[in-house]
Amino acid sequence: MSLSAATLAKPTVSAESLDPLELRAAFAQFPQGIVVVGAEIGGAPHGLVASTFTVGVSLEPPLVSFAVQHTSGTWPVLRDQASHLGVSVIGAGQQGLCRKIASKDRANRFTDVDYATDDDGTLVLTTTPLWLKTRIFNQFTAGDHDIVVLEILDLAADPTQGGLVFHQSAFNPLPSHEA
Amino acid sequence: MSLSAATLAKPTVSAESLDPLELRAAFAQFPQGIVVVGAEIGGAPHGLVASTFTVGVSLEPPLVSFAVQHTSGTWPVLRDQASHLGVSVIGAGQQGLCRKIASKDRANRFTDVDYATDDDGTLVLTTTPLWLKTRIFNQFTAGDHDIVVLEILDLAADPTQGGLVFHQSAFNPLPSHEA
Repeated sequence: MSLSAATLAKPTVSAESLDPLELRAAFAQFPQGIVVVGAEIGGAPHGLVASTFTVGVSLEPPLVSFAVQHTSGTWPVLRDQASHLGVSVIGAGQQGLCRKIASKDRANRFTDVDYATDDDGTLVLTTTPLWLKTRIFNQFTAGDHDIVVLEILDLAADPTQGGLVFHQSAFNPLPSHEA
Repeated sequence: MSLSAATLAKPTVSAESLDPLELRAAFAQFPQGIVVVGAEIGGAPHGLVASTFTVGVSLEPPLVSFAVQHTSGTWPVLRDQASHLGVSVIGAGQQGLCRKIASKDRANRFTDVDYATDDDGTLVLTTTPLWLKTRIFNQFTAGDHDIVVLEILDLAADPTQGGLVFHQSAFNPLPSHEA
């Protein structure tokens, strides 16, 4: 059987003809969880929003990863100036936090946001289904992004909170099965 | 403000005391999309299920990634014997496909499954929200898994299909906003 538009009853797009908008439209069909990666540096909160976070990259040692664009202004600051990084998984009803911390107004990203910091600079949001204290384990270049592998040092999970997933350009809440 | 159990009103677990079951329970709080990575080799279908797939690893060139355990029996076959790999995103109502293709009965994983193959061996499921034709771009070791970066050569998206996300050990359907 040949893979063709007829077989699959839908159009085929070649990568050569793909522009970033078409690629993003295709990627929108894959559901994505959202995290905030953050640290306190010189007494000020810094953070970025990532939709490329992956759990279960390794169990022994415990590793997670995310990909970040080379054009990010926040990532070089976190990478070079923070010894530890907090990862906070965004939960149901918290899409406003994503928009706020992803905004271009970097100085006010954490204004009126509830967060906590540790002595080592780890920054996490205080009400999340899961937060992780991590440090950078490894980094790899992949095209126009870096894949950053993080080692988990500490974590707290709250299964009574629902999840949030970005799919088809919309935020979808997921119920907690343990509420 | 110090990051503590009191501040966060939930327990903190240190990585040193984390066993794989606790780690999996924590990871369950992060929503995951599911894909089948597959190829036809010597006339027979081969495939594995991954919950570590990531889109948007790069736009230029177009890259995606997944992480696969070193203990996988199927991955070395795909990696070493397939020139191209199909990635099929599992959609709403297709959780049965996940279980079937993740089963230990490797010879029957594709029995009664609708799939299509291309002359280059790419194998995709025929009814999915998104499939990609890819080839391996790069691979990195990360703990007990490999992170595999795939270059997209071709794709087809069907936004009328709903999505599927694994969260808190359950499959959750996501509605199509374009149905």
